[in-house]
Amino acid sequence: MSEVEDSRGLVVVPGVQCAAGSIGIKRDGIQDAALYTFDPPADYAGVFTTNQFRSACVESALERLHAGKKIHAVLVTSGNANAGTGLPGRADTERLASGVALELGCRADEVIVLHTGVIGVPLRSERLLPKLAELAAALSDGVAAGLEAAEAMMTTDTFPKQTVRSLSFGNGEAFIGGVAKGAGMIHPRLATMLVILATNLAVRPEALQVALGRAAKETFNRISVDGDTSPNDSVVLLATGAIAIGQEPLDVQSPEFPAFVQELTTVCEDLAKMIVRDGEGATKFIEIRIAGAASDEDAEKAAIAIATSPLVKTAFFGRDFNPGRMVSAIGRSGAAVDFDVFTMAIGGINVFAQGQFEAVRAEDAERAMAPSDIVIDANLGQGEGSCRYFTCDLTYDYVRINAEYTT
Amino acid sequence: MSEVEDSRGLVVVPGVQCAAGSIGIKRDGIQDAALYTFDPPADYAGVFTTNQFRSACVESALERLHAGKKIHAVLVTSGNANAGTGLPGRADTERLASGVALELGCRADEVIVLHTGVIGVPLRSERLLPKLAELAAALSDGVAAGLEAAEAMMTTDTFPKQTVRSLSFGNGEAFIGGVAKGAGMIHPRLATMLVILATNLAVRPEALQVALGRAAKETFNRISVDGDTSPNDSVVLLATGAIAIGQEPLDVQSPEFPAFVQELTTVCEDLAKMIVRDGEGATKFIEIRIAGAASDEDAEKAAIAIATSPLVKTAFFGRDFNPGRMVSAIGRSGAAVDFDVFTMAIGGINVFAQGQFEAVRAEDAERAMAPSDIVIDANLGQGEGSCRYFTCDLTYDYVRINAEYTT
Repeated sequence: MSEVEDSRGLVVVPGVQCAAGSIGIKRDGIQDAALYTFDPPADYAGVFTTNQFRSACVESALERLHAGKKIHAVLVTSGNANAGTGLPGRADTERLASGVALELGCRADEVIVLHTGVIGVPLRSERLLPKLAELAAALSDGVAAGLEAAEAMMTTDTFPKQTVRSLSFGNGEAFIGGVAKGAGMIHPRLATMLVILATNLAVRPEALQVALGRAAKETFNRISVDGDTSPNDSVVLLATGAIAIGQEPLDVQSPEFPAFVQELTTVCEDLAKMIVRDGEGATKFIEIRIAGAASDEDAEKAAIAIATSPLVKTAFFGRDFNPGRMVSAIGRSGAAVDFDVFTMAIGGINVFAQGQFEAVRAEDAERAMAPSDIVIDANLGQGEGSCRYFTCDLTYDYVRINAEYTT
Repeated sequence: MSEVEDSRGLVVVPGVQCAAGSIGIKRDGIQDAALYTFDPPADYAGVFTTNQFRSACVESALERLHAGKKIHAVLVTSGNANAGTGLPGRADTERLASGVALELGCRADEVIVLHTGVIGVPLRSERLLPKLAELAAALSDGVAAGLEAAEAMMTTDTFPKQTVRSLSFGNGEAFIGGVAKGAGMIHPRLATMLVILATNLAVRPEALQVALGRAAKETFNRISVDGDTSPNDSVVLLATGAIAIGQEPLDVQSPEFPAFVQELTTVCEDLAKMIVRDGEGATKFIEIRIAGAASDEDAEKAAIAIATSPLVKTAFFGRDFNPGRMVSAIGRSGAAVDFDVFTMAIGGINVFAQGQFEAVRAEDAERAMAPSDIVIDANLGQGEGSCRYFTCDLTYDYVRINAEYTT
């Protein structure tokens, strides 16, 4: 049922248009805004940062979520996070929503505005408003527009992130597309990541929120670049409802609902993996598979401890076969482990069994660390709990990128 | 009352002798063993790693602690952690204790053996035993021996770490000395750190353990280099009891007990700060002071979030004045914060008040980031909870050191 349709992303979903432009946040005319519109106006689900320190745009997007209004458009701006900017910052976000609404002939609370970029610098939205007309005039469902929009929301990202998948059923075919930005400050609870998802399938708003919650839990909450989270992390899902399976919008009880959740999860996993692959300075993509845990929560604890350990992550960068650091990380994770039956393999090479490390030949260790994609398998010897988690290595370039970011 | 006596460390404490030597763990005759002896044999207190994955030496040292025996000697070996080595590893530790006991004419369970180094490689202690006689023959209370012993326990450390302080009272003067190794894998709960403390003061064993627990909580548990912990972390305190305040050994109820705890805490803080200053690749020493927290636990959560954030730590390396990353870290820490009254200062420059970031002049920001020692002050606006915490920056050299460690 599932297949990557192409790399065009959101614009493949019927009723979605987009445009990219320079509205004056970044210097030298670099594109810093992406506008997405939805026709017919879309039902909306969202999950947001759990950081107590939240950007004005998260407050604004949550307000719209709770109001349950149909959404006409999402504006994404990059270069300034509009976080820690107080009431003036909140007014900036609303002013941009009003500006977009004016161009599209809708209400301001039918427009979501998301920001990403540097924290703590006033946005001064007045200077940005004059460029919104150009942005609205450029709306298109063409491939080029889709790619430009994905690029316009990038900050330290090195490539645009888009995906789209199709969902076939008796009387037709629906699409689920997504676009994401995010490269650093990525951790379990949705760190500096903006994701816009869209589908033309008719789904009841409550069911839409349930589906997004489940999909995000297994994907965006299972990746880590550096363990930090941001005030801006947002994943929004818009459903135009233009096409229905049967007579009614999809509900949690519908027999087709699990298939929708699965397909949505696949779209989210596509984007989550791209975010990890684009981890700041990353050279390795590491998949951590924990099994045999006392619970799924314990499995997640063990995975997070490995995924966020600077010692583990620098070892991967150096192609240094160092299972001791991974076992140490699991040991301090808080997950229950029986080290007498605990087993671990790195890149298919068994490294720990029967209470001790196995002797590994130098050439096997070298072979295990060579690929750009490496899998760590660990069994905690406790129960049925399991977890998959994705991370990347910690490199000179991560330090360089983040030591120099604002200067 | 408190004054750094000199940099000679443990050997200043009457009754303590030491020796350093090469027993065959590291290549090319590099010194890899330090032996400390105590006369009269000492009462013993200890705190150890909370990592579930524990080195054989921690198991062995805990057994001696629970047995309540007097301790004649501590042997420290570096280059191999003897962790994840199963029952053969445990036998290796005991074999070394027996070897030392044979030279000193005591019992094996009166000798503590501590290891540090690479995890998961068999120690093969048989080959090391022949060199123990040389080590015992070299015992001395001279300054040179003290320095050599401190150097012999180093792994990625760049300088030896020793301190000694004196405690005056009515009828005399006692000493508390300490030696430490530790540079990376340092985190709250005592990561890759070995610390040997000694005093000639008479202290009841139960009171000794209470004093060490309190001192460690405020010092070794309040530092972080990279958030990782090791299977080997150990802090042991030996009290020969040669000199007494009054007629009886010091007890928890003694009026002089708080002064002893305070002096011991100062000794531990001396060493803890040296460990952070020697953080792998570190160029900055950062003191985090949290006040106004709902509880001391909350204050610690906020401090740890800042101290372990790769984004914060790389910013300090780049002298990038980036308060947003610190406020974000506090926001995700789990500590209760009221951002409307929250305040923060970096290097004395106020950066956040009344719900938003303050505008900071470029020259002020530059001046704040220039020193090698920088203080972060934050008030969470909740209550009376507070915490001091020490960390360092994350640099190219940290990545280099840890990407290349075993190779």
